[in-house]
Amino acid sequence: MIRPTPAVEAIPATVPFVGPEQLMRESGRSELVRLGANESAFGPSPKAVAAMTAELARLSWYGDPESLDLRDALAAKHRCSPEQITIGSGIDDVMGLAVRAFVAPGATALTTRGTYPTFNYHVIGYGGRLLYAPYCDDGTLDLDALLAIARRERPAIVYLANPDNPSGTFARRDAIERFFGALPHDSLFLLDEAYADFVDENHLLPPVFDDRIVRMRTFSKAYGMAGARIGYGLASVATVRTFQKIRLHYGINRNAQIGALAALGDEAFCDRVVRETALARDDYYALARELGLGCLESTTNFVCIDLGSAERATAVVNDLLERGVWIRKPGAPPLDRYVRVSAGTPEMRRAFAQAFRAVLAALPVEAL
Amino acid sequence: MIRPTPAVEAIPATVPFVGPEQLMRESGRSELVRLGANESAFGPSPKAVAAMTAELARLSWYGDPESLDLRDALAAKHRCSPEQITIGSGIDDVMGLAVRAFVAPGATALTTRGTYPTFNYHVIGYGGRLLYAPYCDDGTLDLDALLAIARRERPAIVYLANPDNPSGTFARRDAIERFFGALPHDSLFLLDEAYADFVDENHLLPPVFDDRIVRMRTFSKAYGMAGARIGYGLASVATVRTFQKIRLHYGINRNAQIGALAALGDEAFCDRVVRETALARDDYYALARELGLGCLESTTNFVCIDLGSAERATAVVNDLLERGVWIRKPGAPPLDRYVRVSAGTPEMRRAFAQAFRAVLAALPVEAL
Repeated sequence: MIRPTPAVEAIPATVPFVGPEQLMRESGRSELVRLGANESAFGPSPKAVAAMTAELARLSWYGDPESLDLRDALAAKHRCSPEQITIGSGIDDVMGLAVRAFVAPGATALTTRGTYPTFNYHVIGYGGRLLYAPYCDDGTLDLDALLAIARRERPAIVYLANPDNPSGTFARRDAIERFFGALPHDSLFLLDEAYADFVDENHLLPPVFDDRIVRMRTFSKAYGMAGARIGYGLASVATVRTFQKIRLHYGINRNAQIGALAALGDEAFCDRVVRETALARDDYYALARELGLGCLESTTNFVCIDLGSAERATAVVNDLLERGVWIRKPGAPPLDRYVRVSAGTPEMRRAFAQAFRAVLAALPVEAL
Repeated sequence: MIRPTPAVEAIPATVPFVGPEQLMRESGRSELVRLGANESAFGPSPKAVAAMTAELARLSWYGDPESLDLRDALAAKHRCSPEQITIGSGIDDVMGLAVRAFVAPGATALTTRGTYPTFNYHVIGYGGRLLYAPYCDDGTLDLDALLAIARRERPAIVYLANPDNPSGTFARRDAIERFFGALPHDSLFLLDEAYADFVDENHLLPPVFDDRIVRMRTFSKAYGMAGARIGYGLASVATVRTFQKIRLHYGINRNAQIGALAALGDEAFCDRVVRETALARDDYYALARELGLGCLESTTNFVCIDLGSAERATAVVNDLLERGVWIRKPGAPPLDRYVRVSAGTPEMRRAFAQAFRAVLAALPVEAL
């Protein structure tokens, strides 16, 4: 009889994000208005598409295991050395490397309850123990609560998504600098900046390449390449060398490398996506006001709308799905009374608004 | 001061495969005749390219985390259930899952010294201990030696690449059935069938979905999609559920899923690649005969040519690189006296033959 290792057997079977493809199968639908995964509704840069199209015939070649050209371009962008950059198949991959490298079995890792859950998936998967701080009631990250726990427990990793998912809220540079400066010196600061491209660069932490911090970026959001699976970590040379000992050297799609490089060269496209995304947020704010609902001010490509209770928010997500509109909602208090809707094209926003109004109007009294 | 976990610190920094992109940088060349990584010289199926081209604009969507459509198609091909299939970003990824799931720190894993090294990379990376059997002198896998060690040491995993890389040799169905039947019941048989598409299906192990075996397949070789990073494991439902607890759910490129599905629907293309590959092998055999060199009979898309000594083989690889032809060579005896050249197009074979003849003619006497 063959059994997995005790460590792997101890991992509970969890249902990760249910994908829209599975929801479509279950509901018999052939399409959905996809507003549930914070994918870009504005697609990849046409320059990236052209570069990838031109190279598809050479997809029989492995990608460069060192992503040399892409790391050179990213080093120029972030004013660092290519030796301070690890490429991964999305932030999820880089995050897994950080947890595997720095969280020993039984060690602790600190996060905010209800924030991006894949960090937790990795911590549990590598036998770590999770510590949680709550969100503030207003949906912002409680940096003071995180700091208090960090200073008491000295966790191996302190994880922060900033801008945050699923709240969309953001802590500015000075607050993050104070936070990082006050962390215990043996805690690694794992800063998930998936949505940083939607923020004015002056409000972000400047480049810092210290053994105590790993910052993660992605081409999945503003660059519109979620399906390519390509992201990266900015870290010290020593940390990148550590990742080099455990990463999947041939894990990155060759066309993802080529598309990412071309996308970096099309800043005008990325700027347009950021502007379009701001318009989408404004539409959602206006819709919420029209319907007498609150919402969280977002610095990302999604907005959380307050439905007043978790039950009501869940009912709205389910009813929208029945009308062919796919969104998600946060799972843990205090955010679980919100629904989260991704920035769509104007057409997708109209479809959402129409379905959302109808769902709210039809919501049974007991769900109010 | 932040340090990696003791387990990760203990992993030696190794140089994995050096990619041709790095060799090009170091040598200042803008192109190489790529015959070093057993990539398909015949590209991906035009149907796969068409399907991927049509979907590039939707690369802003994440791929389906469950690869539902692809697993359905693979289940039909392998006469099994989709619940018996795990999709990974290449065999390397699936192999990492198997090692992580079944090789506890300090446990042993058995392989052949000098065969595909990424298995070793994972075993060392997860704190396992490697046991080695040698190749037979004729370059075939020594199944008896592997069995003797397996029965004595009861390793957590017994790894076999069949057809083998880098030798290109192959053990037929009856030998593999006897081997699997004689393994200790607590050893997992990890069967790497990356090159199985080049073999007559009747010579392969028939479908078997037992907790004691994981078979791995890929779209990187006959399907010509190495750059896509997509492969899969065929295993028991229980093992697939175990992988589900630790795999990167959003690790697969969406276009890789789409291309793989289209490639499965183009058997005629795959058949043509297999025929072209056989012609390439014949060319290499004839070239070796012409030059008075031996070679190993291959069932794969590469051929090993005998240079008589490791020094001479190394010199030939280096000299070919100086002439713009990139091949590799096995690193461990008894295969280290061979060079390994991948099946190229007729044009690439001519370029190789010309450079190979010139290199041999120019080889200094002390290397003979």
